[in-house]
Amino acid sequence: MTHSIAILGASGYTGAELVRLIATHPDLRIAALSGERKAGQPMAAVFPHLRHLDLPDLVKIEEIDFSGIDLAFCALPHATSQAVIKELPRDLKIVDLSADFRLRDPAAYEKWYGKPHAAPEMQAEAVYGLTEYYREEIRAARLVAGTGCNAATGQYALIPLIKAGAIDLDEIVIDLKAGVSGAGRALKENLLHAELSEGFHAYAAGGVHRHLGEFDQEFSKAAGRPVEVQFTPHLIPANRGILATVYLRGEAGAIHDALASAYKDETFIQVLPLGEHPSTRHVRGSNFVHIGVVADRRPGRAMVIAALDNLTKGSSGQAIQNANLMLGLDEAAGLMLAPCFP
Amino acid sequence: MTHSIAILGASGYTGAELVRLIATHPDLRIAALSGERKAGQPMAAVFPHLRHLDLPDLVKIEEIDFSGIDLAFCALPHATSQAVIKELPRDLKIVDLSADFRLRDPAAYEKWYGKPHAAPEMQAEAVYGLTEYYREEIRAARLVAGTGCNAATGQYALIPLIKAGAIDLDEIVIDLKAGVSGAGRALKENLLHAELSEGFHAYAAGGVHRHLGEFDQEFSKAAGRPVEVQFTPHLIPANRGILATVYLRGEAGAIHDALASAYKDETFIQVLPLGEHPSTRHVRGSNFVHIGVVADRRPGRAMVIAALDNLTKGSSGQAIQNANLMLGLDEAAGLMLAPCFP
Amino acid sequence: MTHSIAILGASGYTGAELVRLIATHPDLRIAALSGERKAGQPMAAVFPHLRHLDLPDLVKIEEIDFSGIDLAFCALPHATSQAVIKELPRDLKIVDLSADFRLRDPAAYEKWYGKPHAAPEMQAEAVYGLTEYYREEIRAARLVAGTGCNAATGQYALIPLIKAGAIDLDEIVIDLKAGVSGAGRALKENLLHAELSEGFHAYAAGGVHRHLGEFDQEFSKAAGRPVEVQFTPHLIPANRGILATVYLRGEAGAIHDALASAYKDETFIQVLPLGEHPSTRHVRGSNFVHIGVVADRRPGRAMVIAALDNLTKGSSGQAIQNANLMLGLDEAAGLMLAPCFP
Amino acid sequence: MTHSIAILGASGYTGAELVRLIATHPDLRIAALSGERKAGQPMAAVFPHLRHLDLPDLVKIEEIDFSGIDLAFCALPHATSQAVIKELPRDLKIVDLSADFRLRDPAAYEKWYGKPHAAPEMQAEAVYGLTEYYREEIRAARLVAGTGCNAATGQYALIPLIKAGAIDLDEIVIDLKAGVSGAGRALKENLLHAELSEGFHAYAAGGVHRHLGEFDQEFSKAAGRPVEVQFTPHLIPANRGILATVYLRGEAGAIHDALASAYKDETFIQVLPLGEHPSTRHVRGSNFVHIGVVADRRPGRAMVIAALDNLTKGSSGQAIQNANLMLGLDEAAGLMLAPCFP
Repeated sequence: MTHSIAILGASGYTGAELVRLIATHPDLRIAALSGERKAGQPMAAVFPHLRHLDLPDLVKIEEIDFSGIDLAFCALPHATSQAVIKELPRDLKIVDLSADFRLRDPAAYEKWYGKPHAAPEMQAEAVYGLTEYYREEIRAARLVAGTGCNAATGQYALIPLIKAGAIDLDEIVIDLKAGVSGAGRALKENLLHAELSEGFHAYAAGGVHRHLGEFDQEFSKAAGRPVEVQFTPHLIPANRGILATVYLRGEAGAIHDALASAYKDETFIQVLPLGEHPSTRHVRGSNFVHIGVVADRRPGRAMVIAALDNLTKGSSGQAIQNANLMLGLDEAAGLMLAPCFP
Repeated sequence: MTHSIAILGASGYTGAELVRLIATHPDLRIAALSGERKAGQPMAAVFPHLRHLDLPDLVKIEEIDFSGIDLAFCALPHATSQAVIKELPRDLKIVDLSADFRLRDPAAYEKWYGKPHAAPEMQAEAVYGLTEYYREEIRAARLVAGTGCNAATGQYALIPLIKAGAIDLDEIVIDLKAGVSGAGRALKENLLHAELSEGFHAYAAGGVHRHLGEFDQEFSKAAGRPVEVQFTPHLIPANRGILATVYLRGEAGAIHDALASAYKDETFIQVLPLGEHPSTRHVRGSNFVHIGVVADRRPGRAMVIAALDNLTKGSSGQAIQNANLMLGLDEAAGLMLAPCFP
Repeated sequence: MTHSIAILGASGYTGAELVRLIATHPDLRIAALSGERKAGQPMAAVFPHLRHLDLPDLVKIEEIDFSGIDLAFCALPHATSQAVIKELPRDLKIVDLSADFRLRDPAAYEKWYGKPHAAPEMQAEAVYGLTEYYREEIRAARLVAGTGCNAATGQYALIPLIKAGAIDLDEIVIDLKAGVSGAGRALKENLLHAELSEGFHAYAAGGVHRHLGEFDQEFSKAAGRPVEVQFTPHLIPANRGILATVYLRGEAGAIHDALASAYKDETFIQVLPLGEHPSTRHVRGSNFVHIGVVADRRPGRAMVIAALDNLTKGSSGQAIQNANLMLGLDEAAGLMLAPCFP
Repeated sequence: MTHSIAILGASGYTGAELVRLIATHPDLRIAALSGERKAGQPMAAVFPHLRHLDLPDLVKIEEIDFSGIDLAFCALPHATSQAVIKELPRDLKIVDLSADFRLRDPAAYEKWYGKPHAAPEMQAEAVYGLTEYYREEIRAARLVAGTGCNAATGQYALIPLIKAGAIDLDEIVIDLKAGVSGAGRALKENLLHAELSEGFHAYAAGGVHRHLGEFDQEFSKAAGRPVEVQFTPHLIPANRGILATVYLRGEAGAIHDALASAYKDETFIQVLPLGEHPSTRHVRGSNFVHIGVVADRRPGRAMVIAALDNLTKGSSGQAIQNANLMLGLDEAAGLMLAPCFP
């Protein structure tokens, strides 16, 4: 059965990625696309790579008739999303890709995002969208909050280890490298090709990156006690991909066992043989996560390395995986595209 | 109905691209993969991005039992292919991705490839694989010769114009820019990242590039008289994509009309509105071709610009499109993947 | 003897390139740097790669005391430059890097830039800055107009051939590929890394690119009759470099002779042996031009391929070369930096 | 006074970088260049970007007359270097860029490089080439062993902190990202542009990277006790640059003070204001090191981030800095080139 969906905020990269994935999804049909500044334009003018598709033109959100829509993806900017979602029909299923509903605690939201939440009651209702860990809640949810792409990567590496008690919770370092599309289509000087290519750097080091709010929330929940990690993101001259190198106190063998066991039935999460290193290029354009474990030369220390595509598994692919659950479809429907290499 | 296929030479980029595309093809099943130097290895060791697929290990060609195979894709190096294909079962359908069967004239083959053909009788039998122009012959063929990726790009821009008499046949310049994957996975110094990135250059200028053999053959056939173009390929620091900028004597309006008319029913060929420029990034990872036409400031001169992905429409996607025809399947089966941007 | 210079518009790429080159120039000293929007900031905040230099902070132009300045480089945006230069002291030597003074004919300026010139008397006074062709005029000039970077590349390939009568003046095609820094530090969506990398495209085809004004002016002057070329620029995913592939009617041998003869005493222009192809990566970061000539397979046709670094020889290096002449210094002072490869 | 130098192994990237830097060095003259496999060729055939220089052709080492040579740079492969150097004249000054003489302890050499050293007496004589820490020994040395490029980066970040007692020596994590030129010009599949670009990955994790031998040696020496760090290198799709992100137990303020104090008189080492992040793009092509310090949100933890260009400060620039000292020249002679950005 085909379900009609709307994409709000379709002129950014996560919006385009949703359309790309839905283009070959067997059960979803795009009924409406919004783009405030580009309303009135055909999608092919905004994203010429989608030219072959028969898509509705971009409109303003208020022009959309939601009566025939089964589910809306909200790919709007942070803060905008909560204001928009508050006004949508109460019975519309929503997968939100912004940061607005990721943190359950209003105080945590205010701490990391700098102002009070505009829809705290919906914040309470929202289910955190890390599919493999919230599958049952997502199936029943009306509003699912897509995770941060960095946050997802770190959690895939760490949640099973925290739950299994396989690591020292006070000594976790996450060194994360991310391609540039995670920063979106914003016109910022540091995102220009001439600025970004052929160089790399850390940013937001020292505990100020907002995805720490998600780490704190989810790691502490998994541990049953407060957990704070040391986290530094880096910007890498590639368009897609996140690689998290996690430094841990724990035995590599037990760590590998815990990960392999946790993910043995998961379609999208591949734990590599002990000692192998994953690469972002091997998940590019796909919904897969590759996780490797390597023992350090010093006993009792290990590295876990996780790779995913920020636009797919880290954002739009995850959103479709969640939508599939919410609509009663096969969880993997439309998401089995193989990575695009080279 | 599912058809069993084999991929000979699966350890190169066109082999990997065939697997990527077949991974979500509804009617094809990979029964055998060969790779001479990597025989015995699982495909995931050679191409970790295919790790999630349940694939046969790489074997040597002589280990393959072709009795249950409906069609073989040959992604072997030039010259190797003809020797291998000569020994394959006579009733096996074959799509060859090498240059070995592209030229119908043995003398032309010897001129461009430097030695006599080893299987001239099969050379005569082979159908040239530019799907949109040889559709009926391909449907009935046993052996289809995939086109050169550069050759395909130029032909999509020019064949309708030659047939329509819309251009001066003696004044055709094809300036072609190609990403690096077209050169394959060969260990050559000039293909190293440190050599190639952040720079660009022409190569094989002056009429020595082998794809000229295809241009000469197909353009002369379309014109009913000898046609020789001026052709310079360039190597661009990107992995995928070919852009052909064709300089012509002719009226841009008539040229645009001829192209739009020729391709109006083609699924994979998109003619842009007059004056628009295509980009390789908008066809990346897909089977689509984008063609633009721009008038020069001097009346009677125009540019036609064509873009495609060398590994997909220029090679493995084309091969599957042809295989679909040969097997009686929907021509577009498995090939509607949207381009992967950004 | 050390000369004091000012750089107006030092917060863009050509400004930064001037500083980079002057950092090791034996005879120039930077006395003032302007940057309207970044006035008050240290240069290291705007360009951290210049952190090790002892530079004046950025100021507004009106804050600069020009009394001790021997020469000013104007790296301001087009149109802004003419307004600023009009107000500078009459005895100040100026090298302008904008497009404002490149066209000698006010009508041509208005045609290509869309409005009348604000300082037509200075337009008449300005000397065109293609050093090798205007050396004597530049030596005596007060105001030198730096050339367009694309325009310089095409002229190095063609001027000797036009002068030598070695080519058909009505059949010149310039297919030009340029790295992204030529577009400057402007915040444009199509200059983002995620948009630009891994793809390439033509733009401004069909005779609308403004550098055609320079081609028309200089080629017609060299020929003594109107010359109009067919010109298509392309944007390539690399930061630096321009490669012009020029398609010609003429004998390759005579063409090579004309180029080799014209440039035999030029420090910065290297004509490669007949048949060799230049590459932008081999001139990156330097003031050198590499020019190759290849014969086509059809007698009487040839390709000339020229490569330079748009920020150096195409802009700031050229500007310093001209300043050296204007100040009575060795023309090559500070400009012998070897290309930075890989 | 001009000194004559030879470069042994001039056909690799560090050899080319030596030539690039010496091209504008006031006191060095290249008298001989060797390249075993490319002997007989002009340097311009091997590295066309050096075409403008008047250089000797490549020869075999045994063809070089060392009688007039003041100093030889050995840019030969690891293991080859020790065999060659053993046979060079005893009074020839040598800067070796290979790994052969970095480890003072023969047992350590055998552990990390897998076989006994062929010239242990010279191993004992060699001075470790981290200029800022061995300046006096280098001035007097006959044989200086250039450091590993990764090893240099980590040491610039850590040695002052170890000496100052500012950090916990048992809790040091070095997450290092490196551009591809550090791997040299070797023909390896994983160094191809199509493999490498648009992706990133860790390699040699878990304490197997050979530069750990240098870390162990130098950190333990500085500490006066054994120090073992946890170290993971990553390969980033850029040609030049190393960024080391070091996770530490210690107070950020004290750490910043120790670094600022240690490097306050160093020409090439720039400590950024507390809280700023360095970038590899801001040192590209130069001999500078940029070091940043950021406090973690958890008191008592901090990150130190160091950036340098692996081919310049990490290798050939360092080699020239050392040669300058050995020859009694200004330490910075020829090395003040500003970074090449963008």
